[in-house]
Amino acid sequence: MEEQAPQRPWEELEVLVEESDIEQIESFLETLPASETARAVTRLSDDDQDRLLNTISPESAAEVVEQIPEVHAVDLMERLEPEAAAAIVHELPSDMQADLLGEMQPEHAEAIFEVMPPEEAEEIRTLTQYDDDVAGGIMVTEFLTYPRTITVADVLEDLAVHADTYRHYHVQYIYVCDDANRLVGVLRLHDLILAPRQRAIETIMIPEPMTLTDTTKLDTIREVFEQMAFFGLPVVDETGMLVGVLQRSALEAALASRTENDYRASQGIIGGEELRTMPLLLRARRRLAWLSVNILLNIIAASVIAWYQDTLASVIALAVFLPIISDMSGCSGNQAVAVSIRELSLGLVHPREWLRVWGKEIAVGSINGLVLGILIALVAWVWQGNPFLGIVVGAAMTLNTLVSVSIGGAVPLLLRRLDLDPALASGPILTTITDMCGFFFVLSFATTLLAHLSS
Amino acid sequence: MEEQAPQRPWEELEVLVEESDIEQIESFLETLPASETARAVTRLSDDDQDRLLNTISPESAAEVVEQIPEVHAVDLMERLEPEAAAAIVHELPSDMQADLLGEMQPEHAEAIFEVMPPEEAEEIRTLTQYDDDVAGGIMVTEFLTYPRTITVADVLEDLAVHADTYRHYHVQYIYVCDDANRLVGVLRLHDLILAPRQRAIETIMIPEPMTLTDTTKLDTIREVFEQMAFFGLPVVDETGMLVGVLQRSALEAALASRTENDYRASQGIIGGEELRTMPLLLRARRRLAWLSVNILLNIIAASVIAWYQDTLASVIALAVFLPIISDMSGCSGNQAVAVSIRELSLGLVHPREWLRVWGKEIAVGSINGLVLGILIALVAWVWQGNPFLGIVVGAAMTLNTLVSVSIGGAVPLLLRRLDLDPALASGPILTTITDMCGFFFVLSFATTLLAHLSS
Repeated sequence: MEEQAPQRPWEELEVLVEESDIEQIESFLETLPASETARAVTRLSDDDQDRLLNTISPESAAEVVEQIPEVHAVDLMERLEPEAAAAIVHELPSDMQADLLGEMQPEHAEAIFEVMPPEEAEEIRTLTQYDDDVAGGIMVTEFLTYPRTITVADVLEDLAVHADTYRHYHVQYIYVCDDANRLVGVLRLHDLILAPRQRAIETIMIPEPMTLTDTTKLDTIREVFEQMAFFGLPVVDETGMLVGVLQRSALEAALASRTENDYRASQGIIGGEELRTMPLLLRARRRLAWLSVNILLNIIAASVIAWYQDTLASVIALAVFLPIISDMSGCSGNQAVAVSIRELSLGLVHPREWLRVWGKEIAVGSINGLVLGILIALVAWVWQGNPFLGIVVGAAMTLNTLVSVSIGGAVPLLLRRLDLDPALASGPILTTITDMCGFFFVLSFATTLLAHLSS
Repeated sequence: MEEQAPQRPWEELEVLVEESDIEQIESFLETLPASETARAVTRLSDDDQDRLLNTISPESAAEVVEQIPEVHAVDLMERLEPEAAAAIVHELPSDMQADLLGEMQPEHAEAIFEVMPPEEAEEIRTLTQYDDDVAGGIMVTEFLTYPRTITVADVLEDLAVHADTYRHYHVQYIYVCDDANRLVGVLRLHDLILAPRQRAIETIMIPEPMTLTDTTKLDTIREVFEQMAFFGLPVVDETGMLVGVLQRSALEAALASRTENDYRASQGIIGGEELRTMPLLLRARRRLAWLSVNILLNIIAASVIAWYQDTLASVIALAVFLPIISDMSGCSGNQAVAVSIRELSLGLVHPREWLRVWGKEIAVGSINGLVLGILIALVAWVWQGNPFLGIVVGAAMTLNTLVSVSIGGAVPLLLRRLDLDPALASGPILTTITDMCGFFFVLSFATTLLAHLSS
């Protein structure tokens, strides 16, 4: 990847698009790996992107839409004529149809629904109701279902006739439903293969199979998949109707995307993903939302310094150590946050066990706080030749490390109990409190020992 | 999960283990969801963990080992007698066998290899050679292979006879090999089902199938799976011998674990995962490795303040703004880091395109820097009643935001080009440079305008 010569494929694509040469464009796109397609398409101008999707076949357009990041796909589809958009949507897998239409402005989504076959529109509409973190939000609705009394021979015949359609279905199991479309059994392919041809499938299916409900949460789904080596599980609604199939790979992908969102949230990229191909003002505004909260918290924390201006004025060397202690407490606390978020996501710790976590963090914090405290004390002593300065900054560093690991370890658990996102809120809370405490420790200790410091 | 009463299952388990009641323990473990098992087992004392695994059957022990985090599983297996460990390893899936034995101290791993059937030991040994980020490191070696001349009827017969063994194999495809075990074709289950029973499978297989080689990197594998809806792909070595099967879900899991490692690395949890059930000194030492680098960088950055002590002493209010500017630059820069790491991992930006990224960041940074600069300038002006103080801190904030988004955006790309981990090193580099620049801007501007500031 990194070593390939940068042929600037979007410039090549741009030329082809302006020439509107369908065949050339399609064969060019086929030669590109997925991420190159994404890079090339997202760097075209909006007009060229529109022209591209309007020129190539809906099947090829759907492949392009699948390969570019979702935020861009949504924008693109909103700009197309509803008829063109509907034709492309028709070619997408069901989970992606729902993701795209669910993210669009309602009026654009409605316009597309209206020109679609009513049945297809209804199906997608149902899927868009689900949140991203429940089974309904990540299942696919492409699955094979047969009535219980059909014979093995008829199923095999149907599979053969529709082999081309079913190829895209990721068929693992065949689902057996009663007349009301309620799931009554699951049929494994190899049981089907090995069964006498005239048997009804209800006699060889696994009755009362394990199912998920459409509102089952991601963490619960993971528990289920961890217990057993399923490829996929049927998803039913509250009435027992089969509504979809959740595949292991979809679960893994959803968990991965949650982790990525946590990471971005912890760094202040909130409200969805940011890509540099997005409009400048949108990017600036979203980042500012987080920054402006942070600057207010920072001003509050720094106001502690203002209360101690006189001490600071008499021992100006202290000003050097204030940012060091603030920054190091942030580092120590963030380590504890990262471990807590990890343990929460593995289920190794219950949100209510903050006391246990606190005890564990105090142990680590005592060791690391002492080591860092002694280190910074020696630096201060050697630099200014005053052991009392060393005592002040060393003690402040040790104590503040204890404060920051305590908060860093416990806050994610408390936020989770309040049903807030630990990745998003832990950082600012941690920084504000540890900055305040750090400034307070340094400056109040210095005030106490002032006679020994200002000489 | 969160709302269940905490029955402290590890206390229950502890009692059962001390009573050594096999049946009770096994049926108790069966009732626990996976994460509860992990929580319960990891909180037992080492002795009780050993007793547990020695008491229950190797099959049940293997299930326990699969459910606890890998670091603990490795410790546990190292403490068991080699014979007991070998019996448990025998029950694990091949990718996990390799992960565990690969992570153990070589002498422990050797002891286990020696008491295993030589053929099994050889197979696992081969797998442990692979890195985690190549196909060989995440493939499984449980797959079905048949010679090309065997008939459809014989394959179906063999499937029926060994159905119990094969159930654990995640069978999607059947692989067809020549006499030298070189892969020559892939047979889809439904083609097998629908074929005349006396045909040789070589006549219905897909010849020259798509393959991965055992050294194919994670990102390349992802490209391949993004292009096509495969469930799994055969993995061959450099001689074309079939050595394993890589499943889509294993790929997704490996990508997810890489993202999690990136996040933890960015927060200073390096050298593998940390869990609070790990020994105290190990946890403290690992965190300290990161902290001690950071404190040195911090001291270097803060030394800028020491050069300007005289300016600071005459305008003590500046000391309040130094930590604010240092912290806010860190926030802005980390946003740019998070977006760059995201775009790198999606392949939307090439590591060499740092100039493009820089341009994009300068645009966002100008807007956000101006907004934050004006805000902090107003605070300073209102607080001290001196517009020049506002100009100093506002200008410093604006400029330093530009510096921090430039570095934050570009550094991950440059680190990737040098084949270093952007998640691990970006933070400290960013913080050190932006702190130095921030302190320098505030204090040098203040020195220039000193006549207007100290009144």
